[in-house]
Amino acid sequence: MAIITLTTDFGEKDHFAGAVKGAIYTELPSAKIVDISHSIAPFHITEASYIIKNAYKSFPQGSIHIIGVDSELTPENKHIALKLDGHYFICANNGILSLIASEFVPEKIVEINIHDKVQSNFPVLDVFVKVAGHLSRGGTLEVIGKSIPEVKQLKEMEPLINVEGNQIKGNVIYIDNYGNVVTNISKKLFDKVGKGRSFNMRARTATFNEIFSTYSEAINFDTEMINREDGKKLAIFNSGGYIELAIYKSNPSTVGSASTLFGLEYRDTVTVNFE
Amino acid sequence: MAIITLTTDFGEKDHFAGAVKGAIYTELPSAKIVDISHSIAPFHITEASYIIKNAYKSFPQGSIHIIGVDSELTPENKHIALKLDGHYFICANNGILSLIASEFVPEKIVEINIHDKVQSNFPVLDVFVKVAGHLSRGGTLEVIGKSIPEVKQLKEMEPLINVEGNQIKGNVIYIDNYGNVVTNISKKLFDKVGKGRSFNMRARTATFNEIFSTYSEAINFDTEMINREDGKKLAIFNSGGYIELAIYKSNPSTVGSASTLFGLEYRDTVTVNFE
Amino acid sequence: MAIITLTTDFGEKDHFAGAVKGAIYTELPSAKIVDISHSIAPFHITEASYIIKNAYKSFPQGSIHIIGVDSELTPENKHIALKLDGHYFICANNGILSLIASEFVPEKIVEINIHDKVQSNFPVLDVFVKVAGHLSRGGTLEVIGKSIPEVKQLKEMEPLINVEGNQIKGNVIYIDNYGNVVTNISKKLFDKVGKGRSFNMRARTATFNEIFSTYSEAINFDTEMINREDGKKLAIFNSGGYIELAIYKSNPSTVGSASTLFGLEYRDTVTVNFE
Repeated sequence: MAIITLTTDFGEKDHFAGAVKGAIYTELPSAKIVDISHSIAPFHITEASYIIKNAYKSFPQGSIHIIGVDSELTPENKHIALKLDGHYFICANNGILSLIASEFVPEKIVEINIHDKVQSNFPVLDVFVKVAGHLSRGGTLEVIGKSIPEVKQLKEMEPLINVEGNQIKGNVIYIDNYGNVVTNISKKLFDKVGKGRSFNMRARTATFNEIFSTYSEAINFDTEMINREDGKKLAIFNSGGYIELAIYKSNPSTVGSASTLFGLEYRDTVTVNFE
Repeated sequence: MAIITLTTDFGEKDHFAGAVKGAIYTELPSAKIVDISHSIAPFHITEASYIIKNAYKSFPQGSIHIIGVDSELTPENKHIALKLDGHYFICANNGILSLIASEFVPEKIVEINIHDKVQSNFPVLDVFVKVAGHLSRGGTLEVIGKSIPEVKQLKEMEPLINVEGNQIKGNVIYIDNYGNVVTNISKKLFDKVGKGRSFNMRARTATFNEIFSTYSEAINFDTEMINREDGKKLAIFNSGGYIELAIYKSNPSTVGSASTLFGLEYRDTVTVNFE
Repeated sequence: MAIITLTTDFGEKDHFAGAVKGAIYTELPSAKIVDISHSIAPFHITEASYIIKNAYKSFPQGSIHIIGVDSELTPENKHIALKLDGHYFICANNGILSLIASEFVPEKIVEINIHDKVQSNFPVLDVFVKVAGHLSRGGTLEVIGKSIPEVKQLKEMEPLINVEGNQIKGNVIYIDNYGNVVTNISKKLFDKVGKGRSFNMRARTATFNEIFSTYSEAINFDTEMINREDGKKLAIFNSGGYIELAIYKSNPSTVGSASTLFGLEYRDTVTVNFE
């Protein structure tokens, strides 16, 4: 029995997530359901894309990932199911898989057509759960709908490289629970463009000349505790492989965080200039 | 083994929900526990009533629903267990089942008396879990306590119809994660009173002449994307069957929502006048 | 198969908790995972200590508790695994077990050394899950690392008793979801020092001469509902056994709570003077 994960903007309070889980257990009594997140900002495709990209890989191959963000069926927002990197995804074709699909080519994508009779303002419950049930019982994608060649890609999630090949212009795509600022510049891209050259990275007034592998790598533990650098600004390649701007051991609700202290928000520009 | 669901005002942070789950697994090692919500506003019976009403139905028949809101035992707030619409509920008799019990007559209601020896300020852990364990093992309600004829009903959740039969006066009973405003006027009541007549619905300064079945039904997808009506106000019958006032694709924390833009809060009046 | 619980400061939104669950299921397909809390304030060891102390005991003996708060490996913050009161804990040795370890002597503590090759800024995923997998399959602590004699204790969580033996000076260690103020003064200590004497307890301007066993014990239910004492201030021994200052049926986001009305915050002093 496959694992079914849920990534939605339902929030922690409403009945939506609970109702979906009830429907899954009704459909599949022995299902194993895992909440990835229900706290995506409403309709925020970029956030959902970042979160699902960084969570799905830890799950066993064959897991089924339901994404319930901006999922109402409209003439422009079709429901799709696909297999990609050994995992199944069920979502709207609204660019939500941009980050994953920029690394992996889907094996198979179908536009779901089992809901010709279902008029619904709760498609995750009324449509996605049924598709998950079908896949979980070993059903094929072909039965669910007609094949389409590719998923929609959001351009705004791709960093730009200049013609001289010495500059990457990226963007803030996520602010995490610690107020750390995540960019869309991956280590892979950074290494490919930078080729080991030294660099200067700028995000508003904050600048960085080094990118660490771990938070604590930036800290000198030989000094006395009293002189220790809690609150030091630093850049790291985070566990997802993206450049992240951080404040060492920051607490956003008290002393502030990278996001508040650097004044950085979603979509702001981060520029890396190589020498 | 029955599913056991939890709907509480414990919040996401405290140890309460975790401790209750531990106690359930200690009592029933193979239990299947599902969180419906732990983010009900403290002691907010109406919110809990709305959430459990809209979640329980998706679960398999025979599921056991624990509701931990305003559940301290007092001379006026007795603990009850009941069977209703094929599901078991364990809660305080404080009106929390008003919305469900206005549609279904309970098969059997008992006032829990197994805690004569238990003095507790954590009754969900010390009492409700034991009752759930008993029911989950196939025990009967009769063993748990003495039969009572009916559950407490909260009057404030019932809309009023005028003597002429051309007006429904309802109230806001819930604001959801998207800031959408949910009323206590059901489609069933609306159709029964309205008999297909045209109408005018007013909630503070906002007025509506149409109620849609889905959010996107209100949107004209033939226009250019640039002229699209994100932010359009609309009324729908929501997935729970109640009239809901919404803003198309609103994000409460950025552009605002139906609740903030219409200035509507819990308990505010919504009036439908039929011609 | 043991239960694995998670107590972290990952928040409800980010991918961290989801990724960890995926990794556990990949390691242990039949694992039973329980979220205790992901909403500990970032790096807040005291909060984590209070929450895990009050949650773990409800779980079956042999449960494995992963604590992901301030868990980055540094020269001063080693990873440990231990057995204590019949439960396994996996965490950083940063004082996070202070409250539990002040009551129970660990059977065995080891400093985890399986990550000599793992450089990680996501140690819960990369290290703790592997240790949990090992323990869950019946592996011993000895295999995981070298034995150490004791866990780090945080002094700030211990109340002080004066030399005359008639005063306890404690602190606020937690504010719960209802805004109730939890101190580090346990009933056990209170009884031991007080020996049944009458007392006066002071926390800023609020004073108390009585400590109840349940919230409603402080309320006179013989009066008319209209004169009922919602909003009454009271002190109780809470379900965790600590002195808690509360407002009867308070809602922090509307009428206020003990924390806001008494002006009490984390670390503030609470003094009990016995006659």
